[in-house]
Amino acid sequence: MFSLSPIETTTMFEPTPPPSSPPPSTLKDEVDIVIPTIRNVDFLEKWRAFFEPYHLIIVQDGDPSKVIKVPQGFNYELYNRNDINRILGSKASCISIKDSACRCFGFLVSKKKYIFTIEDDCFVAKDPSGKDINALEQHIKNLVTPSTPYFFNTLYDPYREGADFVRGYPFSLREGVPTAVSHGLWLNIADYDAPTHLVKPLDRNKRYVDAVMTTPKGALFPMSGMNLAFNRELIGPAMYFGLMGDSQPAGRYASMWAGWCVKVISDHLGLGVKTGVPYIWHSKASNAFLNLKRELKGIFWQEELIPFFQSVSLSKECDTAQKCYIELSKQVRDKLGKVDDYFNKLSDAMVTWIQCWDELNPPSPQSQSQSRVLSLSLPLHDDDAAIILSNGSA
Amino acid sequence: MFSLSPIETTTMFEPTPPPSSPPPSTLKDEVDIVIPTIRNVDFLEKWRAFFEPYHLIIVQDGDPSKVIKVPQGFNYELYNRNDINRILGSKASCISIKDSACRCFGFLVSKKKYIFTIEDDCFVAKDPSGKDINALEQHIKNLVTPSTPYFFNTLYDPYREGADFVRGYPFSLREGVPTAVSHGLWLNIADYDAPTHLVKPLDRNKRYVDAVMTTPKGALFPMSGMNLAFNRELIGPAMYFGLMGDSQPAGRYASMWAGWCVKVISDHLGLGVKTGVPYIWHSKASNAFLNLKRELKGIFWQEELIPFFQSVSLSKECDTAQKCYIELSKQVRDKLGKVDDYFNKLSDAMVTWIQCWDELNPPSPQSQSQSRVLSLSLPLHDDDAAIILSNGSA
Repeated sequence: MFSLSPIETTTMFEPTPPPSSPPPSTLKDEVDIVIPTIRNVDFLEKWRAFFEPYHLIIVQDGDPSKVIKVPQGFNYELYNRNDINRILGSKASCISIKDSACRCFGFLVSKKKYIFTIEDDCFVAKDPSGKDINALEQHIKNLVTPSTPYFFNTLYDPYREGADFVRGYPFSLREGVPTAVSHGLWLNIADYDAPTHLVKPLDRNKRYVDAVMTTPKGALFPMSGMNLAFNRELIGPAMYFGLMGDSQPAGRYASMWAGWCVKVISDHLGLGVKTGVPYIWHSKASNAFLNLKRELKGIFWQEELIPFFQSVSLSKECDTAQKCYIELSKQVRDKLGKVDDYFNKLSDAMVTWIQCWDELNPPSPQSQSQSRVLSLSLPLHDDDAAIILSNGSA
Repeated sequence: MFSLSPIETTTMFEPTPPPSSPPPSTLKDEVDIVIPTIRNVDFLEKWRAFFEPYHLIIVQDGDPSKVIKVPQGFNYELYNRNDINRILGSKASCISIKDSACRCFGFLVSKKKYIFTIEDDCFVAKDPSGKDINALEQHIKNLVTPSTPYFFNTLYDPYREGADFVRGYPFSLREGVPTAVSHGLWLNIADYDAPTHLVKPLDRNKRYVDAVMTTPKGALFPMSGMNLAFNRELIGPAMYFGLMGDSQPAGRYASMWAGWCVKVISDHLGLGVKTGVPYIWHSKASNAFLNLKRELKGIFWQEELIPFFQSVSLSKECDTAQKCYIELSKQVRDKLGKVDDYFNKLSDAMVTWIQCWDELNPPSPQSQSQSRVLSLSLPLHDDDAAIILSNGSA
């Protein structure tokens, strides 16, 4: 077992008056907010009204001797590279350096059911009526309501107030499945790749689309880590952001990698992945020329990665996110190792990540008994007739 | 060859001043508007500004001796049951009676590239700024821009002004595929089934979601015929609304049936199916008690139909919509005939429909030469390595 003692652990200093009794929907004891950063997290001031009731896990990237300032009143723990090395020992090699992929260390050490992760250039967006958007509240709504991966509902999320399943939606599928991921979007600077930013430097996303929907089973999507929430118990072990940044040939594909892995594993386990609201306000694009350098390998590799992930098939024995992830790591080695030796290293890192996860998150007797088999009344495909669901921490 | 002479064919009488030179994007010579109705089509007055430049095909359901009044100034042809019987002879049995499914007769006799079909209780909706929505113009935009069925774009339609492909979207897939269908939505009375209308009689759809997206390959959706446009050359032969209404055991599943067939055939042919904007204003729900009677069989059957359509596989020889539809009709007989004898009759009707299509839409030498094989640079699955595209009229 690793020893877990971050450099700084604070309780709430001089809090601004907290909501006297936050409604249960805030789930304030069940959510950690994970923030990767290399600078003072002043952006939290803008989020104070929404984030202050929650616990933050700040993962400091870059020079560990630098002191990161956190605005007063927030309840947080902060880990720098020295902490990561001390806690994980030689296994710290699976946590990226000089890349926001380091955030996944925060997912490892959290003990909460839900994670919301956000970057330090993301601010509170406004809805079309001019009202501040409480992104975290919407993510929680997305995560605690079911998903519908087996059939597309044309009025989007059927569980949202004012919506429902439309005519022709099979009744046997209206119960939905547990939601693993809530992927939020960005107003102002969209999460474009370097070539698109180079071609359209003045492009700003101004369209507020008031929808959230389940990405259908079998469909991959590009996941961004800028504004992302997930159920750590269900899918946490698959939310690994890979090897990026310092001394790695790839960058800016961390969240993509995590998204592709998470999607195929969610599909296999019968879990849902939503995308849409909430929006955050993304204030600045990083340097497009620098990004092009960092993305270069990924631009080529993704053309091989997408067919790989589209054809991934996991065995029925894989009934937890951990088992799925280990099996996936083997397929990465077998099928992508020939694309570049990097994927052999990545495959090793995926295994190391799961070792870390299991050491820091030992199964409780309770959670082991929660694994269950859900028989769908509607046999969608042979493989789906009995879908093994797990709470992911067994 | 059938003889084609509807009872009434008018040219534009006393037109209100038409747009002096409509922009090319209106495609006024390439679109027919198909309207099934049992009453005077006074609702067209509300659409005059948008529909008057176009040709209408009105399919009169019910008593053929009733005279349907069409507001002055519209260019239209009108077919009643006597016309359908005269034109199709014994094959008229494939066109439903006393059900809006009869609209597909209009698809048969059209000679245009695009069809927009709408019902007579659908009016002009307003966007959030209060501006009238030109539904047809948006459908045309949807149809003339590509679709992206192989990978989900989180900022929705990447070809729309102000949007693009996000980071992590494979570059090899950004060309997209031709769009076959544009499925629009409804403000006010949503297209719910009878049980939902019974349970939520006061429910009104007030959410304007400013998005259009491609339904991913492999995902089925419930298609409604209330506000629907499609490329007749690409997918027309598959847009058959089945046997519904008078002397049939099923009702209110016509557009669902068409949607499931169209989606699996579009997936096979490498075509796209979009859903989202435009909205129309749906003024009234039909009687929910009566609808429950009509839907009853369908509610049970759809639980068998969905797994069937989710597992449909068409052979590589099926390189036109017609060939796909004939092969699908055989699978309907083989796999659904045992659910109810109705599906044997439906299978026969599907064949009859294609016979009618081929007689009324003989292949031109030009269109035959337009069939082409498109090799995708990214092999998504083995089956996709070479996707046969056809213009559907070969």
